[in-house]
This record gives sequence, C-alpha cells and structure tokens, in this order.
Amino acid sequence: MARSVGRICKGFQRLGLLSKQTQLIPFTRVPVGTVRTIVTLPSFLFPQPRDFSLPNPSWGSEMTRMYEHYESQCEVETEGGQKQKGPWRRLPSYNRLLKYATGGVYLSKMIQSKARLFTRNIRNPGAAFEYVLFVNKEEQKCVCILQAGHLLEGPPGHVHGGAIATMIDTVTGTHATFLSGPVMTANLNINYRRPIPLGSTVLLESCLEKKEGRKTFITCRVTSTDGSKLHTETSALFLSITASHLLGG
Amino acid sequence: MARSVGRICKGFQRLGLLSKQTQLIPFTRVPVGTVRTIVTLPSFLFPQPRDFSLPNPSWGSEMTRMYEHYESQCEVETEGGQKQKGPWRRLPSYNRLLKYATGGVYLSKMIQSKARLFTRNIRNPGAAFEYVLFVNKEEQKCVCILQAGHLLEGPPGHVHGGAIATMIDTVTGTHATFLSGPVMTANLNINYRRPIPLGSTVLLESCLEKKEGRKTFITCRVTSTDGSKLHTETSALFLSITASHLLGG
Repeated sequence: MARSVGRICKGFQRLGLLSKQTQLIPFTRVPVGTVRTIVTLPSFLFPQPRDFSLPNPSWGSEMTRMYEHYESQCEVETEGGQKQKGPWRRLPSYNRLLKYATGGVYLSKMIQSKARLFTRNIRNPGAAFEYVLFVNKEEQKCVCILQAGHLLEGPPGHVHGGAIATMIDTVTGTHATFLSGPVMTANLNINYRRPIPLGSTVLLESCLEKKEGRKTFITCRVTSTDGSKLHTETSALFLSITASHLLGG
Repeated sequence: MARSVGRICKGFQRLGLLSKQTQLIPFTRVPVGTVRTIVTLPSFLFPQPRDFSLPNPSWGSEMTRMYEHYESQCEVETEGGQKQKGPWRRLPSYNRLLKYATGGVYLSKMIQSKARLFTRNIRNPGAAFEYVLFVNKEEQKCVCILQAGHLLEGPPGHVHGGAIATMIDTVTGTHATFLSGPVMTANLNINYRRPIPLGSTVLLESCLEKKEGRKTFITCRVTSTDGSKLHTETSALFLSITASHLLGG
C-alpha cells in the first residue's frame, strides 16, 4: 500500500505536479506525533462531482417539502436584514467516500477504481435511496429525509429490512463521524416496529446519547415525516479509528 | 387491495384463463379456517425466471469452491450406487419475492411493477451481492456464501455496514421463513468485529436458537470461508405474520 502511494507520488513528481516533500493524506485522522505535508494537487484533476443530496426531478412533494423545511434553516436572516448561518447544515453526498477527500481520488484508485458507495450505487434517480442529511451542531442531532425507491424491496410492496439498516448505519455513522472524527460501526441494535411502504418518504432522526473514550453512542428513530408512525428504533455504537484499522483488515 | 385482486381475477375469467371459483393466493400462510382455491394459471404466462443462486462467470475461485462444497452435499450416493437427497438443499433466488410465487406476478404488479428485491437489484454480475443459500433441515442451519462486489463500498476498500446487515437480514429471514413460514424482522442486533475487504468471499452461518409462539430466534455469524476470521455476530428475532400485517402497513 505505502509503496503504491510512493509510486503515484513519484509519477506526479516526474510530471512536475508535486514537490518532492509532498505526501498523500488519507481521509482518516493523522495519528499524534506523525508529521505529514499536505498535497496541493492541481485543480483540473478534480472535476466537479455530483452532489446527490441536492433535489432532482424524482423527488416527490413530501421529500421536497421536508428538504425545504430544513434547508430554510441553514441560513437565517438577522433583525438587521443580514444573512447568517442557521442552526442546521446540509451535508453534501457523493458516490464515493474517498474520491473527493484530499488525495482520495488516487488512493481510491489503488483500492478499487470501480468501487462506489453502497447507498449511491444506482444512477437512475428515484430508483433506490434518495436522501439528504442535515446536522445541528448545537443540539448534537442529525436528520435524514429518505425517499425509498422501487429497487429497495424486501417484503412485497415494502422496504427491505437491510435497506432500512443501511440508511440507519449511514445516518448514525455520518453523525458519529461529525461528532468524533473517523469511526467504524461496532454495534447496531435495530427494533423494527412497522414496515415502510415502498415509495414513501420517511424521517431518520439521530441523537447523541453519550461519548466515552473511543466510543460514541447514538440513538436513531425512523418515523413518518409527521412523526405519527414509528417504523424503527435503534441504538448504535461507533468506535473511533485511525487508518491502520482499515489497512490492517 | 381485495377489490383490485377481484378485478384482476374477473379480467382473467373474461379471457377464459380462470374458472369462476378460483382466487389468487398471496405468498403468506392461509389462516386457519379460511377456505381458498388454488389458481391454475396457464404456463405461458410464466417465462422461466433467472435463478441468481447459480454460478456465473463473475464468481471467483473461493466462491466457486465453497458453492461446490455445499452443492455436492445436496445429492449423495448410497452404497448401492443410487442417488438420494443429501443433508443440504440449495435455495433458488429471484429478483422479486412475489413475482414467481403462485399468483404473485399479478399481485406484485398491483403493488409496483418495477419493484425488485434489494439484494438482486443490480444486473451487472459480480458488481454487488453474489450469493447462494443452502439449508440443512436436520441441523436447522442455513449457510450463505457471499462474494461482495465493488458497488457495496462503505469505509474505503471495505463493505458497507448496511450491506453486511442486508445480507444478515436476508439469510436469517430466509432461514426463519424456512423454519416458521412467513415472518417479518422484529430485531437485528449486530456486532461488527472486523471489516470485510471489498471483493472478498465470506460465509454467513445462521442457526436456530429457539422458537416461542410467533417468535423465532436466530443467531448468525459472518466469517472468512475457512472460519479463522470473525467479521460479525448477530442475534435476530422474527415474528410470524399473515398477509394482513403487510396490507395494514
């Protein structure tokens, strides 16, 4: 792995794109005591990626309404008429975790160039997971609006339990990363209360329960958008990691 | 829903495809005391579906080796040289649960004609979930051989926790259905011990823990194919259902 990174760096050095002291930085936190130099890659190597969290024509009225509800709270107007940051922040979403991180496009090619994020692996809008996440730093909360497409079927006419688990892992994992830096899922305990009809829009609400050393405890509820129907309740545990956890398998 | 089924039945009666006393049977168990007549639909309406549990060129050597290991135990030879059923049985797998059940192709069209089973929603062989399930009635066990494709990525270079949960739900749910008839997932408690590298082949082993009334308790371990590496441990609970549970949302 390290030799491959070295070869890629040398290739860029030959092309005059990197200075000799530069080194690629993976997406994970740099361990204490490690000294690394940030790569300054030329911008033409990074085409603008598609942000899947933005509205598209497949979104139904409920998905759009909920999106606008939270989006309107990302920027608020002061009494003096000036705009400032609101309590919520929309998180952009791409189809590869590493691809758009610093140096990630090269690191990801080493691992598997065709790899795509599981929740964004289908191109057809509206067919699978349509979702957007918002975080609220003050309240230590994260919400996700999910429109479940026809390719997510489990029980006839309803969303697969694994597809629901996938979104719960995605939302709680993103929330834990936002709170604690890079993490890995250690436990998901999901209670399924009521099936989710295919095509419907639901709300996932993730809350921090507590942090203890490397552990981040999160709870998550999946409900109808008006909160009247409870679909699942989850407690999740995440462990903070460094790159060595992944590279060590 | 019942009126839609009636309309479809009347349509077939007009076409002379059904007798007037026939009635569509959903995939779920018929409640005690209910009298229903089995539909005998003409065979040309049912083209041969693709069985996704059979080998394809995307399968690697490990996937193929494990498949042959269990497949060879589905039919064994007696001392007299005659062939008879072995301890294991391969379960066929289609891309829609209802489509190939009795009457299911029509019932599924009423719900959503484009719907596809979440674990079989990608056509490109080897890109996502390649898997095959075998059950052992005597030992009340179920095994699944899984080859995780490049579209299942979560942490860089590794399988998404939700994709692992999806396969665990699929295997334990199929096993519970085999043991108890139609069920819905009530709880999944998954401990993630070690990440699964993208592209690797792993083994899921599902065992019956106990049955109590409507409840079926299952445990499931995901390991490397030689059993030396433990990836996840799960306890799962399933509840027996009738069609009304789904139709009632």
